[in-house]
Amino acid sequence: MAINITIWNENIHDKNDKVRAIYPEGLHGAIKAALDEDEQKRFITRAALLDQPDQGLPDEVLENTDVLFWWGHVAHDKVDDALVERVWKRVISDGMGMVLLHSAHFSKISKRLMGTVCRSKWRESGDKERIWVIEPGHPIAEGLPEYFELPEEETYGERFDVPAPEELVFISWFSGGEVLRSGNCYHRGNGKVFYCQPGHETFPTYLDTNIKKVLRNAAAWAAPVKGPVPTFGKYGILEK
Amino acid sequence: MAINITIWNENIHDKNDKVRAIYPEGLHGAIKAALDEDEQKRFITRAALLDQPDQGLPDEVLENTDVLFWWGHVAHDKVDDALVERVWKRVISDGMGMVLLHSAHFSKISKRLMGTVCRSKWRESGDKERIWVIEPGHPIAEGLPEYFELPEEETYGERFDVPAPEELVFISWFSGGEVLRSGNCYHRGNGKVFYCQPGHETFPTYLDTNIKKVLRNAAAWAAPVKGPVPTFGKYGILEK
Amino acid sequence: MAINITIWNENIHDKNDKVRAIYPEGLHGAIKAALDEDEQKRFITRAALLDQPDQGLPDEVLENTDVLFWWGHVAHDKVDDALVERVWKRVISDGMGMVLLHSAHFSKISKRLMGTVCRSKWRESGDKERIWVIEPGHPIAEGLPEYFELPEEETYGERFDVPAPEELVFISWFSGGEVLRSGNCYHRGNGKVFYCQPGHETFPTYLDTNIKKVLRNAAAWAAPVKGPVPTFGKYGILEK
Amino acid sequence: MAINITIWNENIHDKNDKVRAIYPEGLHGAIKAALDEDEQKRFITRAALLDQPDQGLPDEVLENTDVLFWWGHVAHDKVDDALVERVWKRVISDGMGMVLLHSAHFSKISKRLMGTVCRSKWRESGDKERIWVIEPGHPIAEGLPEYFELPEEETYGERFDVPAPEELVFISWFSGGEVLRSGNCYHRGNGKVFYCQPGHETFPTYLDTNIKKVLRNAAAWAAPVKGPVPTFGKYGILEK
Repeated sequence: MAINITIWNENIHDKNDKVRAIYPEGLHGAIKAALDEDEQKRFITRAALLDQPDQGLPDEVLENTDVLFWWGHVAHDKVDDALVERVWKRVISDGMGMVLLHSAHFSKISKRLMGTVCRSKWRESGDKERIWVIEPGHPIAEGLPEYFELPEEETYGERFDVPAPEELVFISWFSGGEVLRSGNCYHRGNGKVFYCQPGHETFPTYLDTNIKKVLRNAAAWAAPVKGPVPTFGKYGILEK
Repeated sequence: MAINITIWNENIHDKNDKVRAIYPEGLHGAIKAALDEDEQKRFITRAALLDQPDQGLPDEVLENTDVLFWWGHVAHDKVDDALVERVWKRVISDGMGMVLLHSAHFSKISKRLMGTVCRSKWRESGDKERIWVIEPGHPIAEGLPEYFELPEEETYGERFDVPAPEELVFISWFSGGEVLRSGNCYHRGNGKVFYCQPGHETFPTYLDTNIKKVLRNAAAWAAPVKGPVPTFGKYGILEK
Repeated sequence: MAINITIWNENIHDKNDKVRAIYPEGLHGAIKAALDEDEQKRFITRAALLDQPDQGLPDEVLENTDVLFWWGHVAHDKVDDALVERVWKRVISDGMGMVLLHSAHFSKISKRLMGTVCRSKWRESGDKERIWVIEPGHPIAEGLPEYFELPEEETYGERFDVPAPEELVFISWFSGGEVLRSGNCYHRGNGKVFYCQPGHETFPTYLDTNIKKVLRNAAAWAAPVKGPVPTFGKYGILEK
Repeated sequence: MAINITIWNENIHDKNDKVRAIYPEGLHGAIKAALDEDEQKRFITRAALLDQPDQGLPDEVLENTDVLFWWGHVAHDKVDDALVERVWKRVISDGMGMVLLHSAHFSKISKRLMGTVCRSKWRESGDKERIWVIEPGHPIAEGLPEYFELPEEETYGERFDVPAPEELVFISWFSGGEVLRSGNCYHRGNGKVFYCQPGHETFPTYLDTNIKKVLRNAAAWAAPVKGPVPTFGKYGILEK
């Protein structure tokens, strides 16, 4: 049972020379490659881009997506509200998984699913980030060491205004003095949501061995479960 | 340090004779009375109604509200989106508490804060409701027995599509065969939110001794904490 | 990668004629059969019984167990404290999963892992139990309907004195008037623990289609993750 | 309604000259002074020491304690198992609050309440600790800034093997490269437990203005609630 994964990217920084040098196939290309490396061949992957028709997510794509990865940063406002509602409904009602990457914490879909401001502190000062595994028995921690480092990342710092994660898998240490809950799991409706903080466009984060494992683990964890489809509204009595 | 409480009510059913017979001062009147009975005199209470100017919540009221109780049912759609955003911001940024009562689970502000569909099953069949205290050490359980009963209530049943409560204080048993997570605590931004399920307009629920305690306990629990006001956005380095 | 499962049973009621009529191969036999029915053939199963050498769990068995199912009721006290410590250590340090069945909530190993009294109310009055799925996107809910019924079960009622489950999958309704958090997930150390309440020896619960699915789902969910093995104690400085 | 607080200390390091220079009245004396500074005069405080009769906690003391603070480090093993059971029972059954300080994470009572190994990494290298407030609406965050610093503290680092806190109030950043969940809330039975990591004997941590606030906030938060006293065991049917 292959898991169908769509990697959505606003694809704007990706045209910049500096970013291109790191990610010649775009951020989506690197994320796709990380998933395609899966030894168990669990994933069927494709990219979807903001400047494509229907902003990359026509019904036939969205309805055939089991897990949607989302990378956005400078174009959150460009995403149609109607698309956000379609994505939201697909998570809540159909159980599609979502993996929110880096600046996607502040995307419309993140704010829609979380109900909060979804902001943190941030700084581009080339801090070192050390990612500590807090819940070693969680599927997203599979194959990881106790901690791993990214020599340079954008710093995101607490207070990170999101609901307390239902499962907190990572906490990041930044050399500039901050901490962040950086690997955060939620159930929302029938779906699952994972927020993963590392992934700034000017650093080769998605080429890192451990981050690539995290992407694969998150994809498998967020895949829909064929659980019950709840009914809502007026309901007949069960006991008389 | 008195806690300023505003009880918002759509005040529509309240004009109906059957409801008037139970709640001559309206649902808001009964809720207000329950809070005013507080032996420790912790609360300064007032009502706010949908058909008042600014839908009852002009800035000077909202900004002087520490905890906002919300009763709505048939007029959720009448509430201005701009008011919802003002209330939401006051919870998230200023830490105003919210107590969502009964059908307010499906109000705009509830959906805005939760990020989910916020629906359940429901039925008006005069079921008995037995409310079990699940977390006896929680402040909202103060003074309650192990369980208490409401001879008749509207049935709300799982699946209740909300994020898993951070603290689950009550689970209700209904004679018709359903269960519900019926006393649900959340942090959202700097604020706290409590959802309390009982409170249908055609039953004297807000006259019940235990429910009145729950209202007072919830008001005290949800009152703002003078915690830090987080800063967001670009942030200078702390360590060099 | 098969998951090695050991089903431990105190095997006392199982010799009683009434129980034998339902479970001719013992409760462990029925649980084993439910796991062996797995269409994906994920599990290698065996039973372990209290009256076997080393109380059924010599090192070579325990160390080759990925998930340990535990059924105990009248002989909790007979289990050696040393065995409890070995099982506890295997969960905490090695990530072995545990599925605590029915009265195993009050077993030594349950109390050791939970840190609380682990008691509830109970009654053998042949109540109907209706199990509601509270978190439909959870792997343990795979393949289940919104709710399912057991025509007769032993009633367990709240207050159930356990730590709040990290993920609450089921809440049960009992015809006699109680509710119970009846499908409860925890991380403990590197391991995962699932408590599943139904399973009284005098009812054919483990022959129920939905319960059998729950057992298989729980086995897969609780299987160890090859996550990091944390180091504890004195630790060299990482940054100078 | 004053809150009766007992500060238990093993009182061993306190006799050392270096520690005496910082804490002339012992660690318990400094903690007591911090609580006694409460502007609302909510607390009646006393100290209890390991080398006193009944290890400082005869029944008449324990039964008149609403919140027990616990500081222990090198003498965890000296604490009688029977005392640990009495303290545990008082938390679970009577709702006594516990504030576990610094090395008390590894005390017998901590391990008894948590059910896990309760270990972390540690190092005495005079790291700077920066304590970030993660949940600004939590009562334990009252009056605190977004973060505060301790110029030197003992480093404790993740993986900290405890159950995931039900409410996570602080995460600490250490200059040596670690992070820690350092302000952790739990319900256990009818009681509440707060773990607060800073407080090494060779640093003036308990003289810090913010830490003193945390101690007072934790004392008020952990105070017992007069909630229901659950009954357990065989229980008559409620519905026939």
